[in-house]
Amino acid sequence: MTIAHIAERAGVSAPTVSKVINGRPEVAPATRQRVERLLREHGYRRRGGQGDGPAGLVDLVFTEIESPWAMELVRGVEASAREVGAGVVISVLHDRAGPGRDWVERIAARHTDGAILVGSRISADRHDRLAARSIPFVVVDPDGEPPAGVASVGATNWHGGLAATRHLLELGHRRIGMIGGPPGMLCSRARVDGYRAALETAGVPVDPALIGYGDFLVGSGRDGGHELLSLPDPPTAIFAGSDMQAFGVLEAARRRGLRVPGDLSVVGFDDLPLARSAWPPLTTVCQPLQEMAALATRMVLDPSPGGREPRRVELATELVVRESTSPPAGR
Amino acid sequence: MTIAHIAERAGVSAPTVSKVINGRPEVAPATRQRVERLLREHGYRRRGGQGDGPAGLVDLVFTEIESPWAMELVRGVEASAREVGAGVVISVLHDRAGPGRDWVERIAARHTDGAILVGSRISADRHDRLAARSIPFVVVDPDGEPPAGVASVGATNWHGGLAATRHLLELGHRRIGMIGGPPGMLCSRARVDGYRAALETAGVPVDPALIGYGDFLVGSGRDGGHELLSLPDPPTAIFAGSDMQAFGVLEAARRRGLRVPGDLSVVGFDDLPLARSAWPPLTTVCQPLQEMAALATRMVLDPSPGGREPRRVELATELVVRESTSPPAGR
Repeated sequence: MTIAHIAERAGVSAPTVSKVINGRPEVAPATRQRVERLLREHGYRRRGGQGDGPAGLVDLVFTEIESPWAMELVRGVEASAREVGAGVVISVLHDRAGPGRDWVERIAARHTDGAILVGSRISADRHDRLAARSIPFVVVDPDGEPPAGVASVGATNWHGGLAATRHLLELGHRRIGMIGGPPGMLCSRARVDGYRAALETAGVPVDPALIGYGDFLVGSGRDGGHELLSLPDPPTAIFAGSDMQAFGVLEAARRRGLRVPGDLSVVGFDDLPLARSAWPPLTTVCQPLQEMAALATRMVLDPSPGGREPRRVELATELVVRESTSPPAGR
Repeated sequence: MTIAHIAERAGVSAPTVSKVINGRPEVAPATRQRVERLLREHGYRRRGGQGDGPAGLVDLVFTEIESPWAMELVRGVEASAREVGAGVVISVLHDRAGPGRDWVERIAARHTDGAILVGSRISADRHDRLAARSIPFVVVDPDGEPPAGVASVGATNWHGGLAATRHLLELGHRRIGMIGGPPGMLCSRARVDGYRAALETAGVPVDPALIGYGDFLVGSGRDGGHELLSLPDPPTAIFAGSDMQAFGVLEAARRRGLRVPGDLSVVGFDDLPLARSAWPPLTTVCQPLQEMAALATRMVLDPSPGGREPRRVELATELVVRESTSPPAGR
């Protein structure tokens, strides 16, 4: 499929198609979109434009990097890119809506080998824009269902939520609170759904008053913890959607004079290095962040082994029982 | 100063000088060093080689990124680079000896605008290699005294050590332990020297048995804490050279059944975001990591405002008193 073919189908001139491919501004938005869609549909790939072999850069794009969680992904991507001699370019977009047009043009101009987008929403429009520049990309923990054809890497979040909640049920808890992450993020929804599934299969009714949401950071765990512990019939255990939120719950419990795990059991999610030196050492669901990052890196640097099929991969989570969980008081 | 002049002084041909500038391998090591030194001494700067204006990349180079401390620097550099539309390339060298030859050639090949080296040792040889490629660089928290002419950014570590120790003395502590970072790192030495100065000016003898060293991570704080607390006459307070080490000391104290701050006061250094949600919230010395990172970024992107004079800057530290310190038991 040559530029001339694309131009013919789009009803524009070949130079206009080139302008779209090279990210030049002087193309009407509607025309640009039509050309981008055709480029993607016909699997157009720029030849030689990126020099011989990989340029040696992978873009790693966050919406925020406030949590040590982000550092685990950085470590995984960096180690994996270094193996093939590539550098890692970090960007923080501060925008869950994903990379904007300026960003796409900038990384296209420096001939990135590919982009790893963490926790982003990828609209079809933005997908087309990346595809038209022949920039392979993978989404880690997408915010919302990514369009068809977008590769993604995550963890078995639903299973993790199930395992965490089953652990608390097996200890004898019946009033189990949940503080999920942002409700729009698929990884967060899946954890909450795993929690519900565990309760329902155990015959324990799901009480909506026991379910809150946060932003995966310490503050929202603290606030959500205080809210749940202020209920007339408070939970004896809380499953937090991230380790950082679990640290916030621990803080709320201490401020209220509650002993963990005697008065309140707490389970986190992530198994950050800090989880084991928390007090008490945190029972949590381990997701293999560095491996997820390394896999995403290999996927963008070698996007199509054996065909153009995009891949969606979830790596296994595993419950790690430490000292922040015990049977509820009175048992 | 042209390439021809450099060649004449070095007693080599002009193409040999070009080879050194472009990082080509086929130059004898002794010749390369001689040419690199001359290029640096004569302030040679490549013209046009980096295209028009900045290429839009800053290299941020760590020896390790295991601590959330590193994330604060990433945030500061990223935010500052983003302001001028530059991307940040992260590398982890796993080598305190600083960037090797391969790395220099790689970043030279992609025309970086400059490099920020964190916690590295910069030998004169490596300095010349970077200077010969016209790569501006700044060292944050150098490991060892950097060669003359190397710009650096740090914090007032000595003052921070002094303030932390004075705070403990004012509370009435006399047996004060110290767990420093790696003894070779200047920032770590300065903190220990501030501790000594506070004790000496207060007329409290410095007991070498109360001074240990670590690697700034949790594990070494835990090990050092157990060691100090096992002494026949253990300290009633411990000043840890980093917040992560302080978290390790808290862990050691809890494992031994000691209450913090009742039985043991603990002070950290850094004021990471996690310090305030630790239990108890950690008294610590705040160093402005994001501002240090932002300053380093501006220094490499605009390395010589008003001349070629390299700069060495220390930003102020400040004691933040929270709940991990109190008068010793019995007072």
